[in-house]
Amino acid sequence: MIQPEAKQRLIKIVGIENFEDSKTEKLVYSYDATPNFQAMPDAVVKPRNTGEVSEIMKICNEYAIPIVPRGSGTNLCAGTCPKEGGLVLLFTHMREILEIDEDNLTMTVQPGVITQDLIQKAEEKGFFYPPDPSSMKISTIGGNINENSGGLRGLKYGVTRDYVLGLEAVLANGDIIRTGGKLAKDVAGYDLTRLLVGSEGTLAIITEATLKLIPMPETKKTILALYHDMEAAARSVSKIISAKIIPATLEFLDRPTLKVVEDFAQIGLPTDVEAVLLIEQDGPKEVVERDILNIAKICEDEMAISVQVAQTEAEAEALRTARRAALSALARLSPTTILEDATVPRSEIANMVKAINEIALKHDVTICTFGHAGDGNLHPTCTTDARNKDEMERVEKAFEDIFIKAIELGGTITGEHGVGIMKAPYLELKLKSEGIAAMQAIKSGLDPNNILNPGKMFAKDNRKRVVVAK
Amino acid sequence: MIQPEAKQRLIKIVGIENFEDSKTEKLVYSYDATPNFQAMPDAVVKPRNTGEVSEIMKICNEYAIPIVPRGSGTNLCAGTCPKEGGLVLLFTHMREILEIDEDNLTMTVQPGVITQDLIQKAEEKGFFYPPDPSSMKISTIGGNINENSGGLRGLKYGVTRDYVLGLEAVLANGDIIRTGGKLAKDVAGYDLTRLLVGSEGTLAIITEATLKLIPMPETKKTILALYHDMEAAARSVSKIISAKIIPATLEFLDRPTLKVVEDFAQIGLPTDVEAVLLIEQDGPKEVVERDILNIAKICEDEMAISVQVAQTEAEAEALRTARRAALSALARLSPTTILEDATVPRSEIANMVKAINEIALKHDVTICTFGHAGDGNLHPTCTTDARNKDEMERVEKAFEDIFIKAIELGGTITGEHGVGIMKAPYLELKLKSEGIAAMQAIKSGLDPNNILNPGKMFAKDNRKRVVVAK
Repeated sequence: MIQPEAKQRLIKIVGIENFEDSKTEKLVYSYDATPNFQAMPDAVVKPRNTGEVSEIMKICNEYAIPIVPRGSGTNLCAGTCPKEGGLVLLFTHMREILEIDEDNLTMTVQPGVITQDLIQKAEEKGFFYPPDPSSMKISTIGGNINENSGGLRGLKYGVTRDYVLGLEAVLANGDIIRTGGKLAKDVAGYDLTRLLVGSEGTLAIITEATLKLIPMPETKKTILALYHDMEAAARSVSKIISAKIIPATLEFLDRPTLKVVEDFAQIGLPTDVEAVLLIEQDGPKEVVERDILNIAKICEDEMAISVQVAQTEAEAEALRTARRAALSALARLSPTTILEDATVPRSEIANMVKAINEIALKHDVTICTFGHAGDGNLHPTCTTDARNKDEMERVEKAFEDIFIKAIELGGTITGEHGVGIMKAPYLELKLKSEGIAAMQAIKSGLDPNNILNPGKMFAKDNRKRVVVAK
Repeated sequence: MIQPEAKQRLIKIVGIENFEDSKTEKLVYSYDATPNFQAMPDAVVKPRNTGEVSEIMKICNEYAIPIVPRGSGTNLCAGTCPKEGGLVLLFTHMREILEIDEDNLTMTVQPGVITQDLIQKAEEKGFFYPPDPSSMKISTIGGNINENSGGLRGLKYGVTRDYVLGLEAVLANGDIIRTGGKLAKDVAGYDLTRLLVGSEGTLAIITEATLKLIPMPETKKTILALYHDMEAAARSVSKIISAKIIPATLEFLDRPTLKVVEDFAQIGLPTDVEAVLLIEQDGPKEVVERDILNIAKICEDEMAISVQVAQTEAEAEALRTARRAALSALARLSPTTILEDATVPRSEIANMVKAINEIALKHDVTICTFGHAGDGNLHPTCTTDARNKDEMERVEKAFEDIFIKAIELGGTITGEHGVGIMKAPYLELKLKSEGIAAMQAIKSGLDPNNILNPGKMFAKDNRKRVVVAK
């Protein structure tokens, strides 16, 4: 609950039109894209500028009101579910692209800008902003930064972290700080920029970001390779990298995913194969052509049953869009879809996919797998029904086994989705208690009253993963 | 002073042969490559493994003994000068390359490995580790990571931070943590990897690192462009980037630097021009050839008086070596050489060089400037004499003016050398008191007794920069 005095002070800052605490409005922001997590906030506020964010933070700090920054709520770790109530902070009024600096190859944006809009604006000027989470048509850049979002182009180009050069952020005490800048090199103190990227709104509220742009690759080509055998596909991935070719995209879909994607997208994908690799290379024309020839040859040598180069950009775009639609397509199959992102060293992909299938069998649950094979970043996805308590318990056990296996193979519990509430109970698998203690020391140092997105990242109690809806 | 009991316990851990507190030995480690900073440690220890580092840390924490991790001491910010005494920690026994993983494109190393050895080992297998600080022939990778070292290839390839995938580190309480891994994507908690990179030994002792390798570029070409006019050189830099060409190296030397470099290296560099650009491009043959042609044309259009492509690798290597020798060459000119690395957005290079020359004139000091023009990372270098107190005061004022100007142009006080003792008094210029407070909160959280490299990064008192030798 927000104390009446605090409420009056908040309204005074943002204006009555930017403070909402009706039941309807609160309900809208009680959940995000993560299934089975819901909690009511006490109010929703829409600051108009950084100064207002700072004033809001001071009040939250004074009255110990939790504050949950939220973009479009597309995250998959319940990272914006207001677990402990408090304020949901929206960036509705902070969605400007402030500058594209063509000399320094930077773009400065407010947190509420939609990722795809930013990418398009960059491309109009011949620049490239590579991070492309599957949700990019609706996700905000503020959300991407807080979650350190990845995407399909991570193998060659890296993730959001690699493109954030500087930030303006508001700390728990209301202090406004600026990190980094339009600078290729900056070692003035700790790297707060990268510490804030991926901190899931638990350390500061990001109010502005300076992003790195790169020149747009001249050309791009897309290959679809089909396999009767998962291991052959995985071997192809390893061989491509061993041949010292780093493709822009190296995506993998298993047979069940392929089938639902084709049902959904209807672009003529085959549905009778065990595995598909969607491979893209971009860059100078000569290089792309040479790489694509070499990649095709490797796939053929590794027993692909078909290797096709997309003949037109429309055809390539249809393939990419189909891949991006995997989650939406899978979501149509059952009432509840749980998408995970256990990640392993690239060399362990075949082992991991095999283990996932065995684990699904063992616990009698349905798991489809797709993902960024070049990154070792897989998305085992369970189609289930949250109302079926018995099945949900098995799902939970299956995912726990998957996380344990990923760690055993030198991997991590989350490659790009974040920890949030959903994976907090498993964080210790990756970090051990010592690593978590180190992170908590940082959190306590910067947010001693624990008002910034509380209940995220650090679990209070057990390892139960799925909070079953009642 | 180290309490006798603590000393006995330290000796028990590392063995008597790895604990030194003779005056001679302490004197050797009382300074680093930074002129005019010296302080005696109480002892020098050489742990043999991570377990010993952890045991040492526990004792230091218990007895409040400062601990200063040190590689080869090549840093230029007095980052390894044991300002508050205590232990200097050497990695003499931890200098193994533990693994090169060709499937995952990683290399795992101990902190004492020499940077150049690591680069050579990678190259032998056809891989590339790009960060190349000028000191790489003697610097250690542990030092590079602690300082987030840059180098000549930063523009295209980034800095050390961009190649550290995972770390093993020992915290102030002796806890051993592991961050990241052989993973292209990992968002399990805060990015401790990048927080530790560049933390100058103030947050943890790094005991192992997993580095990212990339495929070796197929070819490389080198251009030398000469100018009668500094601004024309700076314009060329901007035009190259605006043409969406990102060279591997884009180095700048002014006339005074050029002269001493030629005196030193004797490779036939002209000494009667105002500015030189040393430009390299690497990559696939076709692309390198096209880029080099375009770069040469841009330089000619911008009134370069000569544009020459190195005809052989030996010729190119001689140019690179000459550039890397700039500091050594300048150091021969006078008893004291102070090298700085004020950094600005690339578009501001001409303004910054102009300002540096005006500031040198104003304070009547000699400043030569060279550096990484593509990064906006300049090295204004003052040749002076620490015994001349009057001149040293003017030098100090000049550098303060340079830092203020860099910040005014959107830059930073240090691009790649770090803060250490030397730039601590100026950190506030870049971060304001709020930013420093945030960093101190992190430091206090992780190292509450302030034993890890104390006296670095955060200044206690004033803005005086140069501690004049007595």
